[in-house]
Amino acid sequence: MRSAIRNTELIREDEAVLPVVSREVQYSFSVYEALRVINGHIVHLDDHLKRLAASCSDIGLVHCFSDRDIEMSLDRLIKADGIKDASVRIFIVGGPSPLLFITYTDLLSYPDSYYTDGVRASLYHGERFMPQAKTSNLLMQYIALEEAKRKGAFEALLVNREGEVLEGTRSNFYAIKGDKLFTAPDEKVLSGITRISVVKAASELGLDIVYTPPLASELLSFDSVFISATSMAAIPVSHIDGIEMNKARWPLILDIMKLVRQWE
Amino acid sequence: MRSAIRNTELIREDEAVLPVVSREVQYSFSVYEALRVINGHIVHLDDHLKRLAASCSDIGLVHCFSDRDIEMSLDRLIKADGIKDASVRIFIVGGPSPLLFITYTDLLSYPDSYYTDGVRASLYHGERFMPQAKTSNLLMQYIALEEAKRKGAFEALLVNREGEVLEGTRSNFYAIKGDKLFTAPDEKVLSGITRISVVKAASELGLDIVYTPPLASELLSFDSVFISATSMAAIPVSHIDGIEMNKARWPLILDIMKLVRQWE
Repeated sequence: MRSAIRNTELIREDEAVLPVVSREVQYSFSVYEALRVINGHIVHLDDHLKRLAASCSDIGLVHCFSDRDIEMSLDRLIKADGIKDASVRIFIVGGPSPLLFITYTDLLSYPDSYYTDGVRASLYHGERFMPQAKTSNLLMQYIALEEAKRKGAFEALLVNREGEVLEGTRSNFYAIKGDKLFTAPDEKVLSGITRISVVKAASELGLDIVYTPPLASELLSFDSVFISATSMAAIPVSHIDGIEMNKARWPLILDIMKLVRQWE
Repeated sequence: MRSAIRNTELIREDEAVLPVVSREVQYSFSVYEALRVINGHIVHLDDHLKRLAASCSDIGLVHCFSDRDIEMSLDRLIKADGIKDASVRIFIVGGPSPLLFITYTDLLSYPDSYYTDGVRASLYHGERFMPQAKTSNLLMQYIALEEAKRKGAFEALLVNREGEVLEGTRSNFYAIKGDKLFTAPDEKVLSGITRISVVKAASELGLDIVYTPPLASELLSFDSVFISATSMAAIPVSHIDGIEMNKARWPLILDIMKLVRQWE
């Protein structure tokens, strides 16, 4: 049985539970972060803690757990279970008695073929409430991803009323054209921690960053499109709704991926 | 300690918990119903079970609990704790192993003054994802209601991009003008069980029902406005964003309220 953290205390994973009668549980008034532990090292912890605080602030969730509390809890959990590599989840539910949980699973990773052959994506028309906050209000993402899976796709890309492809259900989205990288502006999407690295890597590799989201109707006009996430780094998208995307810049996407992983 | 139901089995209330590591818990892939038990009788059970099934169908939540299972579980809970009057919550979280919970609290009710003096409401600009499904994706409602409470209001009314006042965070919304009752069409709001009774009562009392939502900019042009919910029946709204609403038809609203309660 794995261990977990509740309110900085070490517990058994099966004790990491939420009371059904809590109003904040019923209303999904909660935020989370998904991190990677590699070789016992927590990747980009400061960025994740910063975003966690921003999510809390966005939705008005007040709690008493300091960054130091969370960091020490993570260390406690890593030591207790001798964790080397893992995907870790920090979860805070608000209300009069906020609850902090830290749980983990085996490290989420994808086959090499995803990077060499790309992945399929499908489009889902829907707009997130408070896109910048990483909260548990993920029903749309859940439904969009289930629909994508039924169609044989790996990810669903969310399209707003203006026809802009903003982000995936668990990833950020990018399109390359010439020496430009197009992606949605910060205020329209979740500010991915890996997105920071992707943008930095793309810049170093000579691309100009344009914060304009690609239009769903113009996806074939781009040289290549890809997604990024903590667990993915950067993965090329081969098809969207069954239509084959251009592959001209896949070598560059893989270079971005390698830089992103290098900086972890 | 109160009892509760998990998967048709009687448990202690503190055993009604959700595993933090469940993907469906993390994604708020769940639906619920809030019912009233009055004198040991479950009010409008069939309507609630019908809506629960519709919510599941809307979001693609498949589970194995039949209406009969849920009804027998409710009976078991009512008998075990000798419940006379209570507010009851049926909650189902989806996924590979769906979980059913039934919990209850003291009967939610409001002071007489709410019905004679009306309640204050405030406007919140935001649109629900899948408005017809009663799911746990309630972050917007939580935030809107907290903001309303800070302003001294009892309810927040959700306004869409077209400026239509669609519904409250936990109520339906109506406006009376002459012999007409205006309210949003079914597809734009949660189909309140009490709304069915309100519409029926208003018809019996001589109003024509017009399924067009009142505009936020025209609220003062109505003779009176009110909200309805399982726990409220019908309550007149005295002020919206601090502006005093017309009270001309409050006696009619109270007549509607009485009919709604009579039919329980």
